[in-house]
Amino acid sequence: MNMMKHMHIVLFIVFLYTSNPSFSYANDICVAETNINTPSGYECKPQDKLTVDDFVFSGFVPGEIKKPFNVKLTVVSAEKLRGLNGLGLSAARVDIGINGTVAMHVHPDESELLMMVQGKVTAGFVTTEKAYVKDIKVGDVFVFPKGQLHFLINSGTEIAIAFVAYSSSTPTFQFLDDLLFGKNHLNTSIIAQTTFLDVAQIEKLKGRFGGSGSG
Amino acid sequence: MNMMKHMHIVLFIVFLYTSNPSFSYANDICVAETNINTPSGYECKPQDKLTVDDFVFSGFVPGEIKKPFNVKLTVVSAEKLRGLNGLGLSAARVDIGINGTVAMHVHPDESELLMMVQGKVTAGFVTTEKAYVKDIKVGDVFVFPKGQLHFLINSGTEIAIAFVAYSSSTPTFQFLDDLLFGKNHLNTSIIAQTTFLDVAQIEKLKGRFGGSGSG
Amino acid sequence: MNMMKHMHIVLFIVFLYTSNPSFSYANDICVAETNINTPSGYECKPQDKLTVDDFVFSGFVPGEIKKPFNVKLTVVSAEKLRGLNGLGLSAARVDIGINGTVAMHVHPDESELLMMVQGKVTAGFVTTEKAYVKDIKVGDVFVFPKGQLHFLINSGTEIAIAFVAYSSSTPTFQFLDDLLFGKNHLNTSIIAQTTFLDVAQIEKLKGRFGGSGSG
Amino acid sequence: MNMMKHMHIVLFIVFLYTSNPSFSYANDICVAETNINTPSGYECKPQDKLTVDDFVFSGFVPGEIKKPFNVKLTVVSAEKLRGLNGLGLSAARVDIGINGTVAMHVHPDESELLMMVQGKVTAGFVTTEKAYVKDIKVGDVFVFPKGQLHFLINSGTEIAIAFVAYSSSTPTFQFLDDLLFGKNHLNTSIIAQTTFLDVAQIEKLKGRFGGSGSG
Amino acid sequence: MNMMKHMHIVLFIVFLYTSNPSFSYANDICVAETNINTPSGYECKPQDKLTVDDFVFSGFVPGEIKKPFNVKLTVVSAEKLRGLNGLGLSAARVDIGINGTVAMHVHPDESELLMMVQGKVTAGFVTTEKAYVKDIKVGDVFVFPKGQLHFLINSGTEIAIAFVAYSSSTPTFQFLDDLLFGKNHLNTSIIAQTTFLDVAQIEKLKGRFGGSGSG
Amino acid sequence: MNMMKHMHIVLFIVFLYTSNPSFSYANDICVAETNINTPSGYECKPQDKLTVDDFVFSGFVPGEIKKPFNVKLTVVSAEKLRGLNGLGLSAARVDIGINGTVAMHVHPDESELLMMVQGKVTAGFVTTEKAYVKDIKVGDVFVFPKGQLHFLINSGTEIAIAFVAYSSSTPTFQFLDDLLFGKNHLNTSIIAQTTFLDVAQIEKLKGRFGGSGSG
Repeated sequence: MNMMKHMHIVLFIVFLYTSNPSFSYANDICVAETNINTPSGYECKPQDKLTVDDFVFSGFVPGEIKKPFNVKLTVVSAEKLRGLNGLGLSAARVDIGINGTVAMHVHPDESELLMMVQGKVTAGFVTTEKAYVKDIKVGDVFVFPKGQLHFLINSGTEIAIAFVAYSSSTPTFQFLDDLLFGKNHLNTSIIAQTTFLDVAQIEKLKGRFGGSGSG
Repeated sequence: MNMMKHMHIVLFIVFLYTSNPSFSYANDICVAETNINTPSGYECKPQDKLTVDDFVFSGFVPGEIKKPFNVKLTVVSAEKLRGLNGLGLSAARVDIGINGTVAMHVHPDESELLMMVQGKVTAGFVTTEKAYVKDIKVGDVFVFPKGQLHFLINSGTEIAIAFVAYSSSTPTFQFLDDLLFGKNHLNTSIIAQTTFLDVAQIEKLKGRFGGSGSG
Repeated sequence: MNMMKHMHIVLFIVFLYTSNPSFSYANDICVAETNINTPSGYECKPQDKLTVDDFVFSGFVPGEIKKPFNVKLTVVSAEKLRGLNGLGLSAARVDIGINGTVAMHVHPDESELLMMVQGKVTAGFVTTEKAYVKDIKVGDVFVFPKGQLHFLINSGTEIAIAFVAYSSSTPTFQFLDDLLFGKNHLNTSIIAQTTFLDVAQIEKLKGRFGGSGSG
Repeated sequence: MNMMKHMHIVLFIVFLYTSNPSFSYANDICVAETNINTPSGYECKPQDKLTVDDFVFSGFVPGEIKKPFNVKLTVVSAEKLRGLNGLGLSAARVDIGINGTVAMHVHPDESELLMMVQGKVTAGFVTTEKAYVKDIKVGDVFVFPKGQLHFLINSGTEIAIAFVAYSSSTPTFQFLDDLLFGKNHLNTSIIAQTTFLDVAQIEKLKGRFGGSGSG
Repeated sequence: MNMMKHMHIVLFIVFLYTSNPSFSYANDICVAETNINTPSGYECKPQDKLTVDDFVFSGFVPGEIKKPFNVKLTVVSAEKLRGLNGLGLSAARVDIGINGTVAMHVHPDESELLMMVQGKVTAGFVTTEKAYVKDIKVGDVFVFPKGQLHFLINSGTEIAIAFVAYSSSTPTFQFLDDLLFGKNHLNTSIIAQTTFLDVAQIEKLKGRFGGSGSG
Repeated sequence: MNMMKHMHIVLFIVFLYTSNPSFSYANDICVAETNINTPSGYECKPQDKLTVDDFVFSGFVPGEIKKPFNVKLTVVSAEKLRGLNGLGLSAARVDIGINGTVAMHVHPDESELLMMVQGKVTAGFVTTEKAYVKDIKVGDVFVFPKGQLHFLINSGTEIAIAFVAYSSSTPTFQFLDDLLFGKNHLNTSIIAQTTFLDVAQIEKLKGRFGGSGSG
């Protein structure tokens, strides 16, 4: 390479753009616009409007761990960190107070990877054939495969903190108690017939989780 | 767990929602709005507008089996059962009258699973190397892999009924006779050159299937 | 096209194969060999070993509907219908006796499409925000989106029969009672802490569903 | 950055490998081993066995264009260019002699992008509603969407040459004449019933394309 | 098949459409409308508005090969050839003048398949463990796996021309010099700290590629 | 539900298994066997051999932060945490000493989500059009879209620790200095021609990163 070659390079860049006016340089980034949602994610923000703040979320901070579950769950999905859109990734910070529990739940379309930041938990998921349960501590990583019912219990003597990642940009949370006894008001007789729980047990938990729908 | 813990649970639920106002619980469901279509499917209906009827279709019913093919095909895709959107599933009810035929066709982007409900058919698909053909009856299931040319012939003595499932939410049907001789008006000389059919045969079938486009 | 051209065609076919000896004509079909399994499905059977029976399953037949659930479930996945491998489709026949129930369950990685063949059922799935429940009958189709907890109850006066399709070739079934109270032997205190069910209720259902694991 | 820092860098690299002995640097490349095939492609060759020749194919060369079709088709799929495995890409060189034709065919699971290198062709694909046909020449690019029946006809006065790309690493070719009249030996009465072609026409083309299977 | 049957076929077609008014025949084709973009691609143009020109691009033509790089790159993505939308394919024509170079670059989400049309190039991509470099000529095909840094150098004595295909419909180009020294104005001290290049070298190349951002 | 019904349930479970002997309950979990690798991941371990330790990794622990980069990178991919196989998730713990840097690199097939655990970093990625750079601290989350060149610099006064998640189960790391100047021994003249770096600069960095390959 001689020097003469290099002297023209800035000029070249200009020509390149002139001859390819609609050429898209960074189209594989699709930051969410929140007004239109599709099965693959939200509408893309135009590339020339992107800023670094589309890729940063600043809310993984301590906060009041509310009774009675003693849990604080901070989820960062494509709605809050718009740069996640279309990338198949999201995250959450979970703070579990002493004696606290992240109750039995399922993410219908996400696997979850849990990384302990502080404290100890008993983590587990259940399949029909086996219960996979283990006490984990700082330094441990635990994976919950997609669509499996799972839980966390603080098994230590301090607040437990974990960072978790999900394999979609818009994870959803279906807590078993909300599904069976919550404000979706699923009919008590249906619950009894399809779970074999006693009606008294169902009504008791509906009282706690906000459900009605007796019958 | 003691009773004191449980007494606070309803309160907790309220706090949870207050501190996460934009938290989406069921976003993996994307019921179709029909006005905007993308490669991954239609725009999602807002979650709070969903009803059970978005997940139900009531048209798998008997109907007049029209001559001359003696076939009635009832397709339920995301356009009709909007809850199918983005799920990679759809279905059809096929009624084939006596001597009826579902003629040679291809689904460009779907595999198909056929379950017999009544009667008997000869089902088959063809690859360059082998023809896979079998007489099937009530109790049988037949799979047609994606993009293969296939057919059904009523081989029994009553109306044959089958339920079929497709591996996309918007299946498409390309009947060979429509493609070659139908209202797309493909030029006769092109057909002759690319299929080696005789011109007389092409013109005869164009007369039957609505095609013109001689040349 | 004149006749001279056509006289040479058979000869051509021979040449084509000679010059492309490893050319695969039907490789998009990957019929399962059952010994090696991967995230995308089973190892493919060689194309020259395929027969039509790789694409047919003949077990969607009536059978004894066993008490106490009064349900008979016949699943056809890639293990039984090897042509399903890699196609993202499978199916089941469900027979539900009078008063029978397909109890609350989840398919961790499949959507489900239900087509009624005989009788009536109450079908439903539950999200945190709403319960989607409907009485459906012959002629109706119902879709259960991926990963949602759902159920069927025979609401008629005869055996109910449905054909269902799943959006994967190897569907899995996680019945809630098996998960919580079954032979996976999940510890009673964990169940109590993560579901808020009473210990007495848990022990009662463990007695019925085969679970032990007290503690 | 001062010089002292840099003096240790080679040492560092050694340490990095020592502390992460199983660390995989280039695992997203999965060059085909041909003995095990799965729905997602062939088994991967170990990374330390890869050479540049796994990524090069040298057969896009002129050759004898055989009568009677006057076509030479050179396909490069993952079987021949093993670095294509798992990448969703493959290619072909098509040479079409004067009056030659790439007859009506379908790729069951691939879209195709055609780039003219020499000469002129009439290219087209057909859907039920419309025939998309155009004369194209050097400088033109034509896309055939996945699973659509399509063809090429040399419409110029010299050999036409095109390079085509496919959206899978193992494209398959289903020529309509081979499917209907070829060595798969599909039964003549089935062809007649499902295509409405005359028996005489079918028998005539079976004579040319190697099919038997009368009945 | 007797003649009576055939006489009614045209009539049938009419009935078919009447009883299925919203039936979509070709929905697997999703030609881009350019106003709405999503992770899976652009909004679909309505099927009844499609023309053959949605599937043709006519710009793979010679043009002025600009100094100083001596390269002319003509990309055809879904923005220019709207029928590519959603199909996972696109292409480019690359003309490299004598002594010209397609400098080190990466396509963040695409594999690339290169087919030589004229001349000779040295092609290569680099992984941490090995550099895969080869002199290729007309008749050769080279595959660059997804996300790998790669380059082309004209190693012949005439203009080199290649056609390339990409495994997405909207490929993006990230040239290393543009990334490090270009108009994105990445801070010089950050470049120095994260690449170990000398500040003088960085400033020299920023002068050539348009970057500022010293610090 | 009356009591008589429940008394038979254990018996039912036995019958269910007897009548469906090959019924797979948890096949959507595909824990890696390390001997066979495919584009979709490793061969699955048989379900009856799974233990909870297939889903746990215990190595996210502090360790010696080696000079000269002052970085310790602990990656947990499907090779180490075999339950990750096929789930599209993996993770790493990154410890960056004072003045340390995670140098410019790219993951060819993964997006990355970074969650700060301790300290402060300057994080960034670069596209041709813009550099996205920000100082982030404990409580912040940063997303690097797939295939983009990116980096981290410890900008605080203590060791910085971050947990990161990747959108594949087998992430790969391509550090720019290793690619250009490392043990892959890319030829100096090729580097000069394709990056416009001065030969003296190239040779200097080859001395540091282990590369030879002059020419």
